[in-house]
Amino acid sequence: MTSEHRFLAHRHDEWYPVARSDRLRERPLAAMLFGTPLVVFRTRTGAAAVLVDRCPHRNVPLSLGRVRGDTLQCIYHGWEFDQDGQCRAIPGLVGDVRARERRATAFACVEQQGFVWAWGEAEAAPTREPFRLPYLGERGWTTAREELDVQASLHATAENALDVPHTAFLHGGLFRSQDRARREIDVIVRRFEDRVEAEYVGESRPPGIVAKFLAPRGGNVIHFDRFLLPSVAQVEYRLGDSGLCISAVLSPLEDYRTKLFIAFSYRLPVPGWLVQPFLRTFAMRIFRQDAWMLARQTETIERFGEENYKFTEIDILGAEIYDLLRRGRIPEPSRLTAPSERTLRITV
Amino acid sequence: MTSEHRFLAHRHDEWYPVARSDRLRERPLAAMLFGTPLVVFRTRTGAAAVLVDRCPHRNVPLSLGRVRGDTLQCIYHGWEFDQDGQCRAIPGLVGDVRARERRATAFACVEQQGFVWAWGEAEAAPTREPFRLPYLGERGWTTAREELDVQASLHATAENALDVPHTAFLHGGLFRSQDRARREIDVIVRRFEDRVEAEYVGESRPPGIVAKFLAPRGGNVIHFDRFLLPSVAQVEYRLGDSGLCISAVLSPLEDYRTKLFIAFSYRLPVPGWLVQPFLRTFAMRIFRQDAWMLARQTETIERFGEENYKFTEIDILGAEIYDLLRRGRIPEPSRLTAPSERTLRITV
Amino acid sequence: MTSEHRFLAHRHDEWYPVARSDRLRERPLAAMLFGTPLVVFRTRTGAAAVLVDRCPHRNVPLSLGRVRGDTLQCIYHGWEFDQDGQCRAIPGLVGDVRARERRATAFACVEQQGFVWAWGEAEAAPTREPFRLPYLGERGWTTAREELDVQASLHATAENALDVPHTAFLHGGLFRSQDRARREIDVIVRRFEDRVEAEYVGESRPPGIVAKFLAPRGGNVIHFDRFLLPSVAQVEYRLGDSGLCISAVLSPLEDYRTKLFIAFSYRLPVPGWLVQPFLRTFAMRIFRQDAWMLARQTETIERFGEENYKFTEIDILGAEIYDLLRRGRIPEPSRLTAPSERTLRITV
Repeated sequence: MTSEHRFLAHRHDEWYPVARSDRLRERPLAAMLFGTPLVVFRTRTGAAAVLVDRCPHRNVPLSLGRVRGDTLQCIYHGWEFDQDGQCRAIPGLVGDVRARERRATAFACVEQQGFVWAWGEAEAAPTREPFRLPYLGERGWTTAREELDVQASLHATAENALDVPHTAFLHGGLFRSQDRARREIDVIVRRFEDRVEAEYVGESRPPGIVAKFLAPRGGNVIHFDRFLLPSVAQVEYRLGDSGLCISAVLSPLEDYRTKLFIAFSYRLPVPGWLVQPFLRTFAMRIFRQDAWMLARQTETIERFGEENYKFTEIDILGAEIYDLLRRGRIPEPSRLTAPSERTLRITV
Repeated sequence: MTSEHRFLAHRHDEWYPVARSDRLRERPLAAMLFGTPLVVFRTRTGAAAVLVDRCPHRNVPLSLGRVRGDTLQCIYHGWEFDQDGQCRAIPGLVGDVRARERRATAFACVEQQGFVWAWGEAEAAPTREPFRLPYLGERGWTTAREELDVQASLHATAENALDVPHTAFLHGGLFRSQDRARREIDVIVRRFEDRVEAEYVGESRPPGIVAKFLAPRGGNVIHFDRFLLPSVAQVEYRLGDSGLCISAVLSPLEDYRTKLFIAFSYRLPVPGWLVQPFLRTFAMRIFRQDAWMLARQTETIERFGEENYKFTEIDILGAEIYDLLRRGRIPEPSRLTAPSERTLRITV
Repeated sequence: MTSEHRFLAHRHDEWYPVARSDRLRERPLAAMLFGTPLVVFRTRTGAAAVLVDRCPHRNVPLSLGRVRGDTLQCIYHGWEFDQDGQCRAIPGLVGDVRARERRATAFACVEQQGFVWAWGEAEAAPTREPFRLPYLGERGWTTAREELDVQASLHATAENALDVPHTAFLHGGLFRSQDRARREIDVIVRRFEDRVEAEYVGESRPPGIVAKFLAPRGGNVIHFDRFLLPSVAQVEYRLGDSGLCISAVLSPLEDYRTKLFIAFSYRLPVPGWLVQPFLRTFAMRIFRQDAWMLARQTETIERFGEENYKFTEIDILGAEIYDLLRRGRIPEPSRLTAPSERTLRITV
C-alpha cells in the first residue's frame, strides 16, 4: 500500500516456504510469492518443483493441470513442463517441441524440514541454504506443522506474533488475563545483524494454560521472543529439560497478505502425542484471533489510505523488525558477533 | 464521483447526525462522515462521544472495543481514550501514558432531539447549534425515529425525498395512482437564503392512504415540501389541528452514500400510539423503495462514469437544492428575510 | 485490458446480436455492447428496439421499466420513449414533452433469423445487412439456438471455439480422447479478405460421440472451421446429404466479456426433433467447459496484468483471427475473390 511497505516486501534473494511437504501429493498446489502466482508440484520420482502458475501458451493456471511422470501437464492443450520449466510435450505438434520461448518460468526449490521452499527470484541460483528450524529431529522433541493465511503485511504479522502486551486483551481468557495482579519485569533486548531477541526476565511461569503443561509445578521459565531474517517469528519457553519453541516462517504473498508456515516443537514431561492435539488446537486458536485482528487492521489501513502508527517503549520488537526488514540480510557472518543490548521494564 | 459532487459533499462546518440516541447503549457504534470512519460511544455517565474509528497505536477500529467508565478501550492492546480523544491508559507501560501524539482524533458531539450529532470538522469548535426539528415535544404531537442507508449522493437523496412526480410510478399502488384522473394544480416555490419550500395549492387531500388518517372527511390540506440547509428534507401536511411532518436529516457518509435520520411527527384525531405502527411501516416502505431506486441510479451513474440529468419545470426542487448545497449556509440571519417566490403548474 | 485488445474490440460499424427473438416478450431485456448497457424491448406491434439503458431524466435503467403500446416507460417517473428514443410522455408536465435533449439514445435494430441485432454505433445508419447464418430454413435442416456469457475477449473466445488441439484435453472423455492412437493429417488454411477457413483433410470421421449421429457407418467427413468477420465462429461437418453446422455469433460486451449467440443447424439421417435434445445438451456442455477455461485464462491475464501468448504452427486460426479483427472488414466485395492458401500437418 505505502511505498515503504512495497520496499519491505521485496527481499527476493531469500528462501520462503510455499507448501507443507505433507500436503503436496499427486495434485499440484497453487501458491503465491511477491504477488506472483506459483504452482508447486511433485514429480513421480518425489522431487518438488515450483513454476509460475501460468502456461506460456494460452495463459491458463498450470495448477489446474495434473502430474504425468516428471512433468506437469496443462489442462487446456496438454502442454507438459518439467521441473526446470522446459517444455517437453505439445500434443498435435509435428516435430521438436523444445524452444526457449516455450519455457514456463521456474523457481529454485528445495524440500527441508517438512516444508517446500522456493527461492524468491525466478530463474536464479540460490546463494545460501533455507533457514533451519531448531530442535526438529532432536531427541525427545516432537514437532507439528500448520499453515495460515493472514491479510496483513509481513511486518505487521511478525510484530503481532512477537508482541506481548496484546495477549491480555485480544486473547483475554485464553491466555493472559487483564484483571489479574500485574507486576513489573525486565526485558533484555539483544539486537544482532540478522535477528533481534527479547528475553523476559523474572516471569514466574509462562502465562495462561500453556504453563500448566510446561511448568506444572511453577518455577522460573526462560522466555525468548525472536525475529530472524529473512522472515521467522519465534517464541521459545524453556524450563529445565522441558521446552516449547514455536517458529512461524512468514511468506510474503502480497504487500498485505502473508502466509505463516508454523512449526510447533516441544519436549515435555508428558508424552508428545498426548499433548499435541491440545497444544495445536490452543495455539491455532490464538493464531486465528491474531489473523482476525490483523485483517481488521489492514482494512482500517486501506480505508484511511495509509499506516499511521504510534510507538511506545513496550512495542519492543516492532521497530527492530522494521529496521531488520528494511536493511535485509548482511551476508558477512563475522559481523553477527557483536549484538547491541538494552534493558527495559514492562508491566505484565 | 464527479468533482462537482465531491464539492457538494464537503460542507464540513455543520452538524450531522451520526446515531440514534436510543441505539447508543453500552456497545460503541461504527459510523461515518465524509468518508471518515467514526466510532460513537456513550460513557458510563451518559455522555455521547465521537472519535475517528482508528486506534492511533496499531490502526485497528476502536468500534470493536468496549466502554470502561469514561473511556473507550481498544480491543487489541487495551489502550483507553476519553471523549476528547486523550489517551488515558496503555497497559504494560511504566510511567505516564499521556502524550499528545497518542491522542485519538475527536469530533465535537451533542445529543439533541433523540439523535447524536457530530460537527463535521475534526478537533474543531462548533460555531452554531444543530438543526432543530419542529413539533418535537409539542403538546399533542407524537414522534417516531428511523434511520436508513442509501447508496446515493446527498443531493440525489434529498431531491428524491421531495419529488412529487415519481410517487405515482415508483410507489404505484402504495401512494398515488398513475391511472386515476389527473388535474392541474399550482405549486408556489419560495426560495430563502438557507432553504427552499414548495407549497401545493388546491390538492383536495394528500394522496393515497395517508389521507385516510389525516383527513378522513376530505377537505383542503396544506402541503409543503422543504429542503433546509445543511441537509434536511421535510414533507409537511396540515389540516386544521391535525398535522404530519416527516423530516429526514441527511448525513453524507461518502460521495455516493447517504444516511437518513428520520423523525416522523404527527398530531391526529386518533391517538398517536394507535397510528404509529401503521404510519411508520407505510412510510419506511416508501423510503425503502426510494433507496432501491437510488441505488440503481448510482449503479447506472457508475457504469456510465458520470451523471447526465435532463431537467424539466416539474423537477421543482432538484435544481434549487443543488444551488443551496453549492452555496452553503449564509451565516447572517438578516439576509433570510427576502425570499424569492414563483408559481408553476403541475398535473397530479 | 491491453490497448491492443481495446482496439480489437472496437469495430463498431457492424451488426451484433443482442437478444434471442424467442426471449424478447413483454418484459424489456438488459443487454450490453462495447461496455454500453442497452435495453432491448418489443413494442405491442411486435417491433424490436434498442436504446441505451439509461433514462435521460434521472439516469436509472430503462430495463427496469415496462412496455406501454409503442413506448418503453421508465419505472421512476414514468417518462416514455419510443423505438427511436423520442420522448413521448412526461407525466405531470403541462405542455409539449418533446425536446431534443430529452431523447434516449437509440441504436438501429433488426430482427433476423431468430436474433435481435443492433448496429454497433449509436444513432447511426447501418451500411449493410447483418450476417446471414447458412442452412436456416433450408429443406431438411433443423436449427436450435442458445446463448452463453463468457468472461474472455472476443478474440480468445473465437480462437477457443475453433481450436482443435484442446479438445482432446479440456473436453477429454466427452469429445476426443488423448489416449487413442494418433495420426497425422493435413489441414488446408484458406485466408480470404473477410474470413479464414481451415479444412481438415483425411479425418476418418468427426471425433467422439457426435460422429455416431452424423456418420453412423463411418466414412470420410468434410470438416471446416471458419472465422468470418465481424465475429462469427463456425464449425461445419458434412457427409453426403448429412450436415452439422454450428455458428456462434460473438457480441463484444466488454473488453474481457463476450456473449455467444449460437445456432445449431443440422440435417441428419434421423429426425431432427429426436436428435436435438441430445445434441444441444452435448454441445452446450462443451461450450460451458470452454467458458470455464476462458474465465480462468482471463483471471490469469488479470493477475499478471497482460496477455503473454506463445504461438505454434498448430494454433491454426488464432493469429489469423487476430489479424482479421485488427484489419476489420474490407467493404469492397471484389477483393474477396483471391484467398491465400497454405497446408500444414497436425497430429490428431
